[in-house]
Amino acid sequence: MAGSTIGNQFKITTWGESHGAGVGVVIDGCPAGLSLVEEDIQRYLNRRKPGQSAYSTPRQESDTVRILSGVFEGKTTGTPISLMVANEQQRSKDYSEIASYYRPGHADYTFDAKYGFRDYRGGGRSSGRETIGRVAAGAVAAKLLSGLGISFLTYCESIGPVSVDMDRFDPEEINRNPLYMPDKTAAAEAAAYLDECKSNCNSSGGVIACRITGVPAGIGDPVFEKLDANLAKAIFSIGAVKGFELGDGFAAARATGLSNNDSFIPDGQGGIAKKTNHAGGILGGISDGSPIFFRAAVKPTPSIAAEQDTVNKNGEAVRVSIKGRHDPIIAPRAVVVVEAMAAITVLDAMLTNLGAVTEDLK
Amino acid sequence: MAGSTIGNQFKITTWGESHGAGVGVVIDGCPAGLSLVEEDIQRYLNRRKPGQSAYSTPRQESDTVRILSGVFEGKTTGTPISLMVANEQQRSKDYSEIASYYRPGHADYTFDAKYGFRDYRGGGRSSGRETIGRVAAGAVAAKLLSGLGISFLTYCESIGPVSVDMDRFDPEEINRNPLYMPDKTAAAEAAAYLDECKSNCNSSGGVIACRITGVPAGIGDPVFEKLDANLAKAIFSIGAVKGFELGDGFAAARATGLSNNDSFIPDGQGGIAKKTNHAGGILGGISDGSPIFFRAAVKPTPSIAAEQDTVNKNGEAVRVSIKGRHDPIIAPRAVVVVEAMAAITVLDAMLTNLGAVTEDLK
Amino acid sequence: MAGSTIGNQFKITTWGESHGAGVGVVIDGCPAGLSLVEEDIQRYLNRRKPGQSAYSTPRQESDTVRILSGVFEGKTTGTPISLMVANEQQRSKDYSEIASYYRPGHADYTFDAKYGFRDYRGGGRSSGRETIGRVAAGAVAAKLLSGLGISFLTYCESIGPVSVDMDRFDPEEINRNPLYMPDKTAAAEAAAYLDECKSNCNSSGGVIACRITGVPAGIGDPVFEKLDANLAKAIFSIGAVKGFELGDGFAAARATGLSNNDSFIPDGQGGIAKKTNHAGGILGGISDGSPIFFRAAVKPTPSIAAEQDTVNKNGEAVRVSIKGRHDPIIAPRAVVVVEAMAAITVLDAMLTNLGAVTEDLK
Amino acid sequence: MAGSTIGNQFKITTWGESHGAGVGVVIDGCPAGLSLVEEDIQRYLNRRKPGQSAYSTPRQESDTVRILSGVFEGKTTGTPISLMVANEQQRSKDYSEIASYYRPGHADYTFDAKYGFRDYRGGGRSSGRETIGRVAAGAVAAKLLSGLGISFLTYCESIGPVSVDMDRFDPEEINRNPLYMPDKTAAAEAAAYLDECKSNCNSSGGVIACRITGVPAGIGDPVFEKLDANLAKAIFSIGAVKGFELGDGFAAARATGLSNNDSFIPDGQGGIAKKTNHAGGILGGISDGSPIFFRAAVKPTPSIAAEQDTVNKNGEAVRVSIKGRHDPIIAPRAVVVVEAMAAITVLDAMLTNLGAVTEDLK
Repeated sequence: MAGSTIGNQFKITTWGESHGAGVGVVIDGCPAGLSLVEEDIQRYLNRRKPGQSAYSTPRQESDTVRILSGVFEGKTTGTPISLMVANEQQRSKDYSEIASYYRPGHADYTFDAKYGFRDYRGGGRSSGRETIGRVAAGAVAAKLLSGLGISFLTYCESIGPVSVDMDRFDPEEINRNPLYMPDKTAAAEAAAYLDECKSNCNSSGGVIACRITGVPAGIGDPVFEKLDANLAKAIFSIGAVKGFELGDGFAAARATGLSNNDSFIPDGQGGIAKKTNHAGGILGGISDGSPIFFRAAVKPTPSIAAEQDTVNKNGEAVRVSIKGRHDPIIAPRAVVVVEAMAAITVLDAMLTNLGAVTEDLK
Repeated sequence: MAGSTIGNQFKITTWGESHGAGVGVVIDGCPAGLSLVEEDIQRYLNRRKPGQSAYSTPRQESDTVRILSGVFEGKTTGTPISLMVANEQQRSKDYSEIASYYRPGHADYTFDAKYGFRDYRGGGRSSGRETIGRVAAGAVAAKLLSGLGISFLTYCESIGPVSVDMDRFDPEEINRNPLYMPDKTAAAEAAAYLDECKSNCNSSGGVIACRITGVPAGIGDPVFEKLDANLAKAIFSIGAVKGFELGDGFAAARATGLSNNDSFIPDGQGGIAKKTNHAGGILGGISDGSPIFFRAAVKPTPSIAAEQDTVNKNGEAVRVSIKGRHDPIIAPRAVVVVEAMAAITVLDAMLTNLGAVTEDLK
Repeated sequence: MAGSTIGNQFKITTWGESHGAGVGVVIDGCPAGLSLVEEDIQRYLNRRKPGQSAYSTPRQESDTVRILSGVFEGKTTGTPISLMVANEQQRSKDYSEIASYYRPGHADYTFDAKYGFRDYRGGGRSSGRETIGRVAAGAVAAKLLSGLGISFLTYCESIGPVSVDMDRFDPEEINRNPLYMPDKTAAAEAAAYLDECKSNCNSSGGVIACRITGVPAGIGDPVFEKLDANLAKAIFSIGAVKGFELGDGFAAARATGLSNNDSFIPDGQGGIAKKTNHAGGILGGISDGSPIFFRAAVKPTPSIAAEQDTVNKNGEAVRVSIKGRHDPIIAPRAVVVVEAMAAITVLDAMLTNLGAVTEDLK
Repeated sequence: MAGSTIGNQFKITTWGESHGAGVGVVIDGCPAGLSLVEEDIQRYLNRRKPGQSAYSTPRQESDTVRILSGVFEGKTTGTPISLMVANEQQRSKDYSEIASYYRPGHADYTFDAKYGFRDYRGGGRSSGRETIGRVAAGAVAAKLLSGLGISFLTYCESIGPVSVDMDRFDPEEINRNPLYMPDKTAAAEAAAYLDECKSNCNSSGGVIACRITGVPAGIGDPVFEKLDANLAKAIFSIGAVKGFELGDGFAAARATGLSNNDSFIPDGQGGIAKKTNHAGGILGGISDGSPIFFRAAVKPTPSIAAEQDTVNKNGEAVRVSIKGRHDPIIAPRAVVVVEAMAAITVLDAMLTNLGAVTEDLK
């Protein structure tokens, strides 16, 4: 029943509900000696902060992170790093209505089925605010990985029917538009599509892509702890994710061996490279030195103003319209969550893989 | 580095290489009192046995399982169940050539990068034979779940470009054709496509679908141990899997909230059901009582007779053609592996979820 | 490297240093529906609070606990319970001297050897304040167990050379003297002994005993997860513990089979009891229904005012006298820590053992 | 309920009952490149083999180990090492009587309480034969540690009332007498004492001591994964162990800070040593570079020929005398089991501690 901890060597435990005192994370196993200040984490958190565009909820929270332990004289000590963000808008609303019925597409019913009751204020533990702890921990992992030459490029590849055109792909564009798309034109089309969704009291899904550069070959463990299996779990643990694919993913199921295999080639420097990267940088669960590339499918925001059928806690049919102004799309704000979970997973695999060979131990 | 164990309460550890003495699994945490004989397991293993059709490798192995511990007077005792299948064809071949270069699409290079060397005979630990332990353990999990009213329907949904037509969907057909497709016509078309692949020294990918019926609402844990996250990991840990989606999966990313949300409805018996099942039976990581439905994308067999570019262990470019007659497709034989991993994951979640509420403890 | 989490189903993660912002714990896996208010936890914390007698450090901290998550409308929700105690006296002292050398009997040197540096203020992570998180979590576990009829009697059995006389054993006395001894006379003698230690700038060790009543037979897991093995680990994880014994413990090594075996007898109500309890309530790692009884040896406070030899960070010999007024004994304040760790361990074992038999699953 | 796996990075899973097909272990996470042949393991197993002296059971089994996986061309591959020892005397006996009642001091009753029934032949899973898997895994761990300069000295320190005289301590003597005592005279006295126990249909307990040399400072993790806490668990998981103490152990509880603290001193080579080692080589859960020293109390063999009271499965009082010729003492044969568990624990801690500092990662 204890599901709020992930990781083996770099282990994180998140806590907190939407309308409790706050949300936070304890990071255990971060190596000692990493320079770390609150601003390193805040920059990551700001990428998921609400109220930043027409496409995210206008809930205004500063989401200011505080380091409560594990850092001394500006450096990590190797002991648990406790991070906390206080909830600011936690008393403002009347949730008695939402408490009475089960919102479609939400976890209201399943929490009740499992626990007998739930904290219904703003989704409680299944709120998007739960991801704050993930992002805070991901910021720490990403900083450490950055020092090892590992970097992340994460973005919205598609929103509803609008996809990025690879010919217009521009990584610089990602942080210039509120939808985190690496294609200015697609971002504009997607914005128009989202305006339409909003005017219809509706919402949209999207696809997030992530490319990780610099992971050396040899990371990940055969059989159950494959690097891609752990990425799949980490990404699927994000609330609205409904699909995960590595490299060509589902397209590989329609391909042939000849078109899908990546030929190895000399890299010109005495090492080995690959001619293509259909595999997405992982073979047999172990990194092959190419960029790791994966996609996540994110479902549409389930909270919509349009009327829907559902049942109340007595099992009676009711019609509901979800009040409040919600994000018409989850994917853009989930970009940094995906990146955070990827960073946490890769760092954990790297720490776990030290000493795979007896030579390394001496 | 220890990646061969999965599960929390129902924990399995697999061992063995393609050409060692054998392969096996230790199941720890199986409740006591389950009737279990070797035939229960053998039936599952026979579904993945080689040499059964034109579309699987003609390697002839009886793959006979032996129960070495954990069963007494025909019942599980609650202590570890050790299962073993001896390898029979382990000395027959000269692997000196395969040892010298890195096969495209295989884990040869990544194992060398990680461990410094590898057991190169027949893929060693990354061989498909590693899945025997998974299937054996899955047979035990499925038998226990069956007693709780939980059943699995697993099949090939598509092979290369050929997909099952839902209008012709017939579950009875699945075990009648060697491709495990629930549509006789599609199976015939897929067989023709595979014949063509073979004649071109090529291979094909495919999609496996799995529907799990009877899981009660309330199973799975919020945040990182979501039931779908654990299914994603378990399925992605199978060698050739490149994609995983739950319910509508990637299609949900193109959908809207209105079309994707599943309305709750009274089930007519005082309980709650859903009008649709786009979610695939899991909300917020917890089962909602609907059938759990997921798909896995399986890549084409990387071992193909067609010539390919690669490099040898010295990093020099070479041209290779993989000798031996390999399956032109992995997906059909992986159907039972997918089912096994799903059964293991669901049972583990159920055992972990007992006692979620203080009332349950009394 | 991530060592601050313990437990499988009832999982706790502690964080915090002596002189950081605070200390805390995240409890994950507490069943839903348990009534819980801060006062339930505060009562436990008050048992370890400093400044309560002549035999504990005069550091004055209110150690007020705050529930940050996981409780809604007075009941646990099944999601993580985050508890925090702010540090109040964290800026008051000059630690530059302590930073320069390695205190004998402390973890200064080993932290430096492991991490390269350390938070030297007041012992940092190896401070006794780390146990606040344990005690807070233990209060929750004990409350839940109390509802299942399981109770704890924990006390100092000896202090230095002074032992409790079993003929004078009075459980009511435990909370009447500051040394938590169940024998008024022994408590007085021990107090005199401690006064003598203090006047000699010295300190004393002690033995803590714990008796757990009401654990049903059948809890614990054979082989590595034996209930006594997990108790041994949990108790040995408390800073100053140097020995652990179950039942007769080391005395059993001098006994014979005839004197050490406990005969089973009919309990007069159709059940089974034991004539004696040399085993301490656990056989083969599984509870036998008798009270569980164990002892922990606690070393003397290493911080003493008497002069000692040690080395500084440059490896040079120095003479030091630890400034400040420290507890002349650790054992009495560790009584509640021992009880907390025992409660956490027993509850985790009980939650893990649900569903040991297939019948239980239906 | 899954209790047969231990370890984080060096993970072992044991299986098997006294009278099943065999017993074994799967070692997962052993680094690649270690030279390993069956003889390396057999030498360890021979130290616990029955039938070697008048003080061990005359059951004759060759206990020949077979490596089933994980070794290729004489070296470990980094993948699971499966080791098996077939049971040879498994069909010889009538166990119907033993099945009907609960032997005092054994796990018969607790297994029934937990699982509803048990494999009663020879103790089933709670038989001493379960330790074969531990010893086999320990042999692998010890070989790897030996290459890192870490060695073990394990012996019987006392048997019943007979203790080793430290003035006569001779490590060479340990393997010369069947009681593994480092003192010829004490061994002779202990043998006489055991003869007397046998003639009285009785048995004796004993104390095992273990000294581990060469562990560098800095191994082990603060808080719950302290090196001593994990040693306590590992040693307490051995069937008959009733007490564990590190360094001075329970004597430290009677000591003062001045007598118990170990002064640090310059080691004369620019490093740091300790003047004494009351702590037993671990401070704050982390190794301090001194030898690690611990003791385990082992209870007397519970199977004795003398008549005892107990109850049968119907809860009725009966008198029993345990048939068969059992070891009159467990401790000597448990010496190698203690050493094996210590080696497994130390190696796991070392593999877990790589990368504690960010510098190590580059």
